[in-house]
Amino acid sequence: MTEKLVVIGGGAAGMSGASRARRLNPSMQITVYEETKMVSHAPCGIPYYIEGLFSDEGLFMTYTPSFFKEKRNINVVTNFKVTEVDLQDRIIVAENGTDKIKDEYDYLLITTGAKPKKIKQLSFEGNRIFYIHHPAHATELKNKLLPLNKIAIIGGGILGVELAEALVKQNKKVILIQLPNYLLNKLLDEDMGKIITDYISKYVEVKTNERVEDIRNEGTLVITDKNKYEVDGVVISIGVEPNTDLFKDKLELGFAGTIKVNEYMQTSRKGVYAAGDVAEAINIITRKPDWQPFAPVANKMGFVAGSNIAGKAMKFPGVVGTTITKFNDMFIGKVGLTEADAKRFGIKTISSPVIKARTRARYYPGGGDIYVKLIAEEGTLRILGAEIIGYEEVLGRLNTIAAALYKGFTAEDLFFTEMGYLPAITQVWDPVIIATRYLLKAE
Amino acid sequence: MTEKLVVIGGGAAGMSGASRARRLNPSMQITVYEETKMVSHAPCGIPYYIEGLFSDEGLFMTYTPSFFKEKRNINVVTNFKVTEVDLQDRIIVAENGTDKIKDEYDYLLITTGAKPKKIKQLSFEGNRIFYIHHPAHATELKNKLLPLNKIAIIGGGILGVELAEALVKQNKKVILIQLPNYLLNKLLDEDMGKIITDYISKYVEVKTNERVEDIRNEGTLVITDKNKYEVDGVVISIGVEPNTDLFKDKLELGFAGTIKVNEYMQTSRKGVYAAGDVAEAINIITRKPDWQPFAPVANKMGFVAGSNIAGKAMKFPGVVGTTITKFNDMFIGKVGLTEADAKRFGIKTISSPVIKARTRARYYPGGGDIYVKLIAEEGTLRILGAEIIGYEEVLGRLNTIAAALYKGFTAEDLFFTEMGYLPAITQVWDPVIIATRYLLKAE
Repeated sequence: MTEKLVVIGGGAAGMSGASRARRLNPSMQITVYEETKMVSHAPCGIPYYIEGLFSDEGLFMTYTPSFFKEKRNINVVTNFKVTEVDLQDRIIVAENGTDKIKDEYDYLLITTGAKPKKIKQLSFEGNRIFYIHHPAHATELKNKLLPLNKIAIIGGGILGVELAEALVKQNKKVILIQLPNYLLNKLLDEDMGKIITDYISKYVEVKTNERVEDIRNEGTLVITDKNKYEVDGVVISIGVEPNTDLFKDKLELGFAGTIKVNEYMQTSRKGVYAAGDVAEAINIITRKPDWQPFAPVANKMGFVAGSNIAGKAMKFPGVVGTTITKFNDMFIGKVGLTEADAKRFGIKTISSPVIKARTRARYYPGGGDIYVKLIAEEGTLRILGAEIIGYEEVLGRLNTIAAALYKGFTAEDLFFTEMGYLPAITQVWDPVIIATRYLLKAE
Repeated sequence: MTEKLVVIGGGAAGMSGASRARRLNPSMQITVYEETKMVSHAPCGIPYYIEGLFSDEGLFMTYTPSFFKEKRNINVVTNFKVTEVDLQDRIIVAENGTDKIKDEYDYLLITTGAKPKKIKQLSFEGNRIFYIHHPAHATELKNKLLPLNKIAIIGGGILGVELAEALVKQNKKVILIQLPNYLLNKLLDEDMGKIITDYISKYVEVKTNERVEDIRNEGTLVITDKNKYEVDGVVISIGVEPNTDLFKDKLELGFAGTIKVNEYMQTSRKGVYAAGDVAEAINIITRKPDWQPFAPVANKMGFVAGSNIAGKAMKFPGVVGTTITKFNDMFIGKVGLTEADAKRFGIKTISSPVIKARTRARYYPGGGDIYVKLIAEEGTLRILGAEIIGYEEVLGRLNTIAAALYKGFTAEDLFFTEMGYLPAITQVWDPVIIATRYLLKAE
């Protein structure tokens, strides 16, 4: 009998898993249920859509539902939300408000992603309080935000910073409010965080060390422990959480409320897999559970889940947490553990100072500054992570260190990694190599 | 008694070695002999100087001779060429045309670099035949080239291509002539080489498959096996060779005419070290002798030599051959082995097709094309090398693969290397990862 795979959620992990299973097993019946109109969508594009860098919301999708139907023989059911799951009898129910679909499966792949965290203890609700979530709602969000002039963003993480950039480019007055004492504090230690906070503060009114206590008047008054801000609207971007609503009492949960999976992406129940932002991962550096809700990880988890579902055993080796964002011309990223992360895991660290360099040879025009901080384990000098802020080639340096973390490079290994040199795009001693020299006490 | 180190050649390797030795041994007496007026110089900048991107020739030097004297207590003797070496009695003689210096040493570090290859079998000489060599001669070269209108460049390797770009930007008519059937043929296999040859041919008259048979009339007539070209001058850039003139009969030589060294950078004679473009290296991928005459390798070899001279044992692990150049907005690079390299070493390969992608998310403005080709060993799928051409983040991708080569990653390892994603600078499936999917037969 033909085996049947049901996928819940048509984002990166879901479509990657469905595609991989299809490729390995041409006869499997594959159905993806997606609650919006979009599949293989990319929420990472929402700030740029609001910024006005593109206006065709179809571009949020890598491939359309009809592409998957026609080219990959994957049945994509959009605008149907899965509302019930019976893991015992292997049945799901999906609804679109009018109709109900009941479907059976042999394999279930849960790729329900993440959703914005809400400030639950506060009692506000209002027409001018917004969350950024799904690209299917991006147009509505944009239409509501653009007529406003003064907008408060609560939370200076990646999404808050990216939205701040977008709204500043749209000539909005932006107030970015958060409790931590510098922006992007999950990505950066304080020394690096202060650099980017100072930079962003030139364009945005940044309010750190302030706790939001209430939002009133439909979202036009933000009250913190220190100030009151009259604004035209509020966007809340205090982070995301795994979307496990349907599974909380049905599957073993893991780190940060994710669904627990093994390295084959199998959940605690046979035949049920989870991948992407909803699933736990193992951190390659600490060997401890971790959660990295970003698209490349989701795609690979989906790929692994799809392989295993189709019978080709494959293990997902884990994550190192490569993260990158930008504000104006400044790219900001980290890979692996910050000093603060390492401390939480009880790992003693030794760090390079913040290395400041130009991105190009001293005689080559253009480019700008780059700041690199490298973190290693005390004693062994095993590389634990890096934080980088700069104008050019930030991603490539993060990726290089991601490779180093994947195989447990020491500072000496990274020192001898043969990074190329071209005056137009780097210096002969790459700032990453200079940072390793500090770790080797050979500055 | 105070130990004494003499360094022959004040380029990247020499000054790096002298600096490292000084740091580890504050009392060692260190003297560097440099035949030009410049030290810690960067020949890589010469094309950009000719292009007119900068005009202060002092910028060729990372640090000046007086910096080394004052800050690092390194005695730098410029404009003195070492003309005799007695390895038996540990004596060198240096001359400046007028005066002679005789000096003794306990340790000798040979960092005489590389020099342009000449077309020896031809009998031409002329006032309008040029070689690109040392930044100390860059001003003279620039002054001679700029009045000319039509210039032939013989040899389409890195230097030939970079000079072609520079001269085109200076509104010269450039004819680039070489025997191989595509440009940059040491860096690229034919499929990738054709892409960049087509691109460069839009700006430069490229003549491939032509053998230069003679250059006449002081350098104003180039005669090939197919054509005659009347020009105003000729630049010959057919490659470089190690500058071992003083040592050919005194030290064991290695690959490509380099001085043979072990992993401590020791030559065949005790107390004598060599580093940089004059020294042999081991290729990490093949474990065979190799030669990579580029500044980052030279710096690290010098660093290792200086460590060992000062008594701190350190091994140079070898090279993977990370190489990058550019033409206009296109960066062109390779790391590790090309298919042709692998064939020479008897390694059977499997390659990805040339992956063509955009450098940014489909909805993000700007950026351009990027082409990636990945080469692995048949059977094991161990990564052997990569070739990349593109608009952005080419270097970072090469460096990431350099890290992979350093620790013998397989295609699966590289697939799971967690490369970051940001719509402004990459796509969610990085082209390198897409290439690995082909190698894994999972496209």
